[in-house]
Amino acid sequence: MSHQFSENDSLLLAEIIRLRRDVRGTRFLSSPIDDNTLDKLLEAAINAPSVGYSQPWQFVVIREDGVKQQVHHSFIKENAVGAEQFSGEKQRLYQNLKLEGILEAPVNLAVFYQPQAKPVLGQTSMADMGRFSVVCAIQNLWLMARSLNIGVGWVSIIDPESVKKILNAPQDAELIGYLCIGYVEDFLAEPELKALGWEKQKTMSEVIIKERFDSTNQEK
Amino acid sequence: MSHQFSENDSLLLAEIIRLRRDVRGTRFLSSPIDDNTLDKLLEAAINAPSVGYSQPWQFVVIREDGVKQQVHHSFIKENAVGAEQFSGEKQRLYQNLKLEGILEAPVNLAVFYQPQAKPVLGQTSMADMGRFSVVCAIQNLWLMARSLNIGVGWVSIIDPESVKKILNAPQDAELIGYLCIGYVEDFLAEPELKALGWEKQKTMSEVIIKERFDSTNQEK
Repeated sequence: MSHQFSENDSLLLAEIIRLRRDVRGTRFLSSPIDDNTLDKLLEAAINAPSVGYSQPWQFVVIREDGVKQQVHHSFIKENAVGAEQFSGEKQRLYQNLKLEGILEAPVNLAVFYQPQAKPVLGQTSMADMGRFSVVCAIQNLWLMARSLNIGVGWVSIIDPESVKKILNAPQDAELIGYLCIGYVEDFLAEPELKALGWEKQKTMSEVIIKERFDSTNQEK
Repeated sequence: MSHQFSENDSLLLAEIIRLRRDVRGTRFLSSPIDDNTLDKLLEAAINAPSVGYSQPWQFVVIREDGVKQQVHHSFIKENAVGAEQFSGEKQRLYQNLKLEGILEAPVNLAVFYQPQAKPVLGQTSMADMGRFSVVCAIQNLWLMARSLNIGVGWVSIIDPESVKKILNAPQDAELIGYLCIGYVEDFLAEPELKALGWEKQKTMSEVIIKERFDSTNQEK
């Protein structure tokens, strides 16, 4: 008989999930993350589900300031382009946001998808499944970090090709996520973009559909 | 001061992560999942991180046998094509595997990515970030299910366009995951594809790289 979790166990997991935050540079402490702790995070990651048990992930652990500086340079360029997508009040708000913690976080983690040459069970009809497996690994790591009171921020405002060059990555590797990891003074009570009114929280009824979409949706 | 989790809390999360399995049709019990329990799963999903707080997910809860039958039909077609990708011993093994539990699971959940027309903060340099947010929601749900001793199987051997038609989904919606959800007799001690020798478990040293890839990788 396999292990049965208790109601209290599921309530605790719900709390970890609810209190996880995306952490930016203003929050990270400089206290180092030791190898033992980092291993706990990576262990959670590699216990993620993967399509056809392909485990198509690679994790680059970055502690050197020189590498971080180069990635940060890519962020600055991409962030200027990103800001241009917005206008008026929204652009002003965007420009006041601190959207990464590359230099402040003691550990950066570049997470890659490494496609394999042979066919992968479960990936023959949906080609993105390998990438999605890597995302599952990132989410496992993110929750494990929160349970260890460690903050994680996912930086997506970077050029994946530049980051690949900086890290000397194989040509066929794909950058899926770039994470900033470190201890924090505290975690925000709510997602920052919710608190600032950037986007409203969606209600359950907005995102849950029974059996099938209404046919009027077809016109959307 | 935000909530601090204890060492025991992180150990419990590690156990939930380690004991989560991809569940196929041979394992599901017919016992129903009540609405209150399903809400706990969906609550975990919508507390996932999302790029720019865009919450770009939609969840279609399927309990009707007619809908499941149609999706199962897509599985049968795609699975025949999938099996052809393998040869010899591997193909024989593939054909003996039960790779889904669409009809056996009391609840199926089709999880969609719904792109928004306006630009999304954090998605301006990496277009896949919205899809990845939906995957984070799926992984949260999967772990929450395990903590409630509920099995989840992710079926990817289906044609996303067929499933969209069956579910009457809007044209711009993208199917990210199709999940089979139900109580189980027990959970396997190890991933089935590992136990059967389909793929070996990778070691930490195979997937973790320090600072940057070795330049010899460039030739790969």
